[in-house]
Amino acid sequence: MLVQYNRRVMAAIEKVFLSVVLSALMIVGAAYKAQANPDLTPEELAKAKGLYFNRCAGCHGTLRKGATGPNITDVNLKQKNYDTNIIKAFVTNGTGGGMPSFGSDFSAEDIELIANFLQQAPPAPPEFSLAEMKESWRLIVPEAQRPKKPEHNRNWQNFFGIVLRDAGKVAILDGDTKELVSVVDTGFAVHILRSSASGRYFYSIGRDGKSTMIDLWMAKPDKVAEAKTCFDARSIDSSKYKGKKGNFEDKLAIVGCYWPPHFVVLDGQTLEPKKVVSTRSYSYDTNEYIPEARVAAIISAHKEPEWIINVKEAGYIWAIDYSDIKNLKITQVETERFLHDGGWDATKRYIQMAANMRNKMVIVDSVTKKQIAQIETGNKPHPGRGANWEDPEFGPVTATPHLGEGLVAAWGSDPKGHPKNAWKVVRKVETLGGGGLFVKTHPKANHVWVDHTLNPDDKIKRSLCAFEKHHPEEKPQCWQVADHGRVVHMEYNKAGNEVWVAVWDKVGELVIYDDKTLKEKSRIKGDWLVTPTGHFNVYNTMTDTY
Amino acid sequence: MLVQYNRRVMAAIEKVFLSVVLSALMIVGAAYKAQANPDLTPEELAKAKGLYFNRCAGCHGTLRKGATGPNITDVNLKQKNYDTNIIKAFVTNGTGGGMPSFGSDFSAEDIELIANFLQQAPPAPPEFSLAEMKESWRLIVPEAQRPKKPEHNRNWQNFFGIVLRDAGKVAILDGDTKELVSVVDTGFAVHILRSSASGRYFYSIGRDGKSTMIDLWMAKPDKVAEAKTCFDARSIDSSKYKGKKGNFEDKLAIVGCYWPPHFVVLDGQTLEPKKVVSTRSYSYDTNEYIPEARVAAIISAHKEPEWIINVKEAGYIWAIDYSDIKNLKITQVETERFLHDGGWDATKRYIQMAANMRNKMVIVDSVTKKQIAQIETGNKPHPGRGANWEDPEFGPVTATPHLGEGLVAAWGSDPKGHPKNAWKVVRKVETLGGGGLFVKTHPKANHVWVDHTLNPDDKIKRSLCAFEKHHPEEKPQCWQVADHGRVVHMEYNKAGNEVWVAVWDKVGELVIYDDKTLKEKSRIKGDWLVTPTGHFNVYNTMTDTY
Repeated sequence: MLVQYNRRVMAAIEKVFLSVVLSALMIVGAAYKAQANPDLTPEELAKAKGLYFNRCAGCHGTLRKGATGPNITDVNLKQKNYDTNIIKAFVTNGTGGGMPSFGSDFSAEDIELIANFLQQAPPAPPEFSLAEMKESWRLIVPEAQRPKKPEHNRNWQNFFGIVLRDAGKVAILDGDTKELVSVVDTGFAVHILRSSASGRYFYSIGRDGKSTMIDLWMAKPDKVAEAKTCFDARSIDSSKYKGKKGNFEDKLAIVGCYWPPHFVVLDGQTLEPKKVVSTRSYSYDTNEYIPEARVAAIISAHKEPEWIINVKEAGYIWAIDYSDIKNLKITQVETERFLHDGGWDATKRYIQMAANMRNKMVIVDSVTKKQIAQIETGNKPHPGRGANWEDPEFGPVTATPHLGEGLVAAWGSDPKGHPKNAWKVVRKVETLGGGGLFVKTHPKANHVWVDHTLNPDDKIKRSLCAFEKHHPEEKPQCWQVADHGRVVHMEYNKAGNEVWVAVWDKVGELVIYDDKTLKEKSRIKGDWLVTPTGHFNVYNTMTDTY
Repeated sequence: MLVQYNRRVMAAIEKVFLSVVLSALMIVGAAYKAQANPDLTPEELAKAKGLYFNRCAGCHGTLRKGATGPNITDVNLKQKNYDTNIIKAFVTNGTGGGMPSFGSDFSAEDIELIANFLQQAPPAPPEFSLAEMKESWRLIVPEAQRPKKPEHNRNWQNFFGIVLRDAGKVAILDGDTKELVSVVDTGFAVHILRSSASGRYFYSIGRDGKSTMIDLWMAKPDKVAEAKTCFDARSIDSSKYKGKKGNFEDKLAIVGCYWPPHFVVLDGQTLEPKKVVSTRSYSYDTNEYIPEARVAAIISAHKEPEWIINVKEAGYIWAIDYSDIKNLKITQVETERFLHDGGWDATKRYIQMAANMRNKMVIVDSVTKKQIAQIETGNKPHPGRGANWEDPEFGPVTATPHLGEGLVAAWGSDPKGHPKNAWKVVRKVETLGGGGLFVKTHPKANHVWVDHTLNPDDKIKRSLCAFEKHHPEEKPQCWQVADHGRVVHMEYNKAGNEVWVAVWDKVGELVIYDDKTLKEKSRIKGDWLVTPTGHFNVYNTMTDTY
């Protein structure tokens, strides 16, 4: 099943595709310029709000001012002379810049509705207070009633948590035996999982702001607490600092929200919401007020009692000292706008975050709490948490794939040992095309893996590439993983010799590869495996190994 | 002119006055409950917005959700069945709780207009970006063109800056000779002055958010720079830290704004706006989003590169480390809601801030950055910056007067030397009645002085009280200062042996007393002396001596 694509051919195809779409849009646009802005009934409005929130707000924002996607306020669309038909064409076909095509997901009616909705002023979204969060809070199994030691003999540090997105569930699999251990009902569209510092608990965050806590020591792992902290969220993490003065292991959790734009500190044992802090703020550069300055990613420090969050639209990275939550100390580091995702370097000193609409990675030193570099990597970097390895020529490097082009860019991330290479792109590895969401490797692995999940081409979006980290100069091997769905996200087992990959489809699959040979070892299927997306190994997630 | 009032008699008069007003309001209210909410023409709306902003927003908030005054949103007024006539009665007569009477300041037409305006939803106030601030910025005399040493032989550290509120001017007086040195055109309603660390510059802040910088070394002191940083402001201060690593003397300034709710860092030499940080945040207690969380007061640290600001409606005190303004470090200390004004203890370690709608002073340790006490002092404490002295029985104390009662309360503020008295009210000194805005003393002074500026009684609002700090158990001496206007604010000269007091009236006065004898030494008049309010001695302001 090993297939090699020529990247230049693919890029050419993509360009042709784009220019055809754009020409069509311009013709349609000229013909329909005069069309009026249509009214919606209350029922239509409610439906449109739901569709927009679920599928559009992530990239364009609840207030539509743009972030990973462009500004699509009614005012802006009008200025560009984008009417119903132009907007419909965009929604249906997507763009080469990373906008997915919704032509197969949405009905023609829905697309019409969304196009009309976008031409009206964005409705004011509601606030959400601590009292409302506490009302939603359910402590299902109190601490005292939880097991004192694991109730099973499984190697739970090698468990995998699999997000079953559209089912609103998380599956727990045994990474040693590949058995399904449990399917936990977490609710709407889980975005990610993070492990508590001890690894015992998985915290999940749904795109609707609901967080769930799963106890892996239970005979059949299940959720022990849940709490809704906002209407729209993407990030959650745990307190990972083991210090002299106090041990924060599993003591606290944090959720980063999109709407309302804030972060919430929760009790790490119960998910009880404790404290809310607004991230509505001024942009770092023009110092304009940004009512929708959202938290896109959180990185938990291991060496300090700190969470690192980004404030996406404002271009700030905040280091939040959680040692005293009644007196939070927040260092607000100016970086670059439209921050999205990122992770640690191998030593866990340097925070590396994508400002993807600026085609940059920004680097913040977690010790000095200052930005030390910005790296132009390519068209819309989307690293996930990135991948760290020891490059044979350049020493320790970190890499990111890109939404906008088929490129893994790696930069030196060891300013002490390899100062010449530090924060410079030293490797460029061509992949099959844009739409890459994740790159992954492991300290004990041989390969670096990359996906193409959002590529508009069916073959490419279902293909992976992998290259040897000891021979990164060699062309990567690329192959199609499945003939359906989209292939997304790679995760190693604890030992670092197997790679798990998801086939994101209504009837999904998990494909497990041998990292050394790139050979398929196992293919997991089952009626429970509905729309698998992210999947998280306990040990690698708790230790931030990537 | 020394007159003694009996406090109990005055309190009784006040009670009768209040109950008469309230009864009248209830009768009127019952009669007019059915009255409709009237519409305003655009011209009326514009006028009402101006009136409200200038005279009401300070206490009730631009969004009318309340702070020092109660919530007066249209929704809230309707719930209370307050219609046009009830509202008019409140505006005309004021209340005993600190609401001034506007019957003599506003025309009947204006009062009608305001009452109608308040029954409509508050208009959305505009934002204000750094670009707009920079547009307003005028560097009138660049640093290179300023004198290298004082161009006069006056003892400029004993200069007084006198706010001429309604004239939009600041007068500079020579504290040694009492001569008028200069009248500087600063613009609309200056609220306060603060000195730069060196004392050379006065920074003023207008209630319209315009800051002005006056160079006292010029032959005729004049403004050298100005910048508008918001639409509504109350506080400004300078960088006062002289550290090992860097000297911040006169390097930076900060303005705290009411609307938009933010603070702005400016260049201390030029007033160039550099950075804007939002204070819109969640309340410390219920963690509800507060869109109008305003900066009411700023205290500049001498021992650290820090400004201490309060976030009034949210109940937080923020310690802002300004050593690196690209990476501001802000410690957000939970205290109590509706913070207003305050100052240092004598050692400049403890921040003492009034939460006046909670009848409390809150105490924050600037070293540990934690709240260490809350003190119930009386009905709506309003300390200004407070007064520090060595009490003969209780050791170092700090005191506040009250808006809601005729009381100076003093608490122990030396937890190391006098731990038993620390943060407990140890002295209560009765004054003539409520409406007190300021209390003042000086390390070299004999007396502690207090005003009654907002008292509804004509005699009381024009009277001062003073008591001996070495004999605080003795009844204070109280006397009427003038037979017109309101008497407000006391300030010592540099030597600490004279007290300057303002008679706040269209044709105002400055009255200078001997601190030892309480005898009037001098009375300054002049057609330039229009509505004098706050007055600031350079040395005492630069050193935070109070």
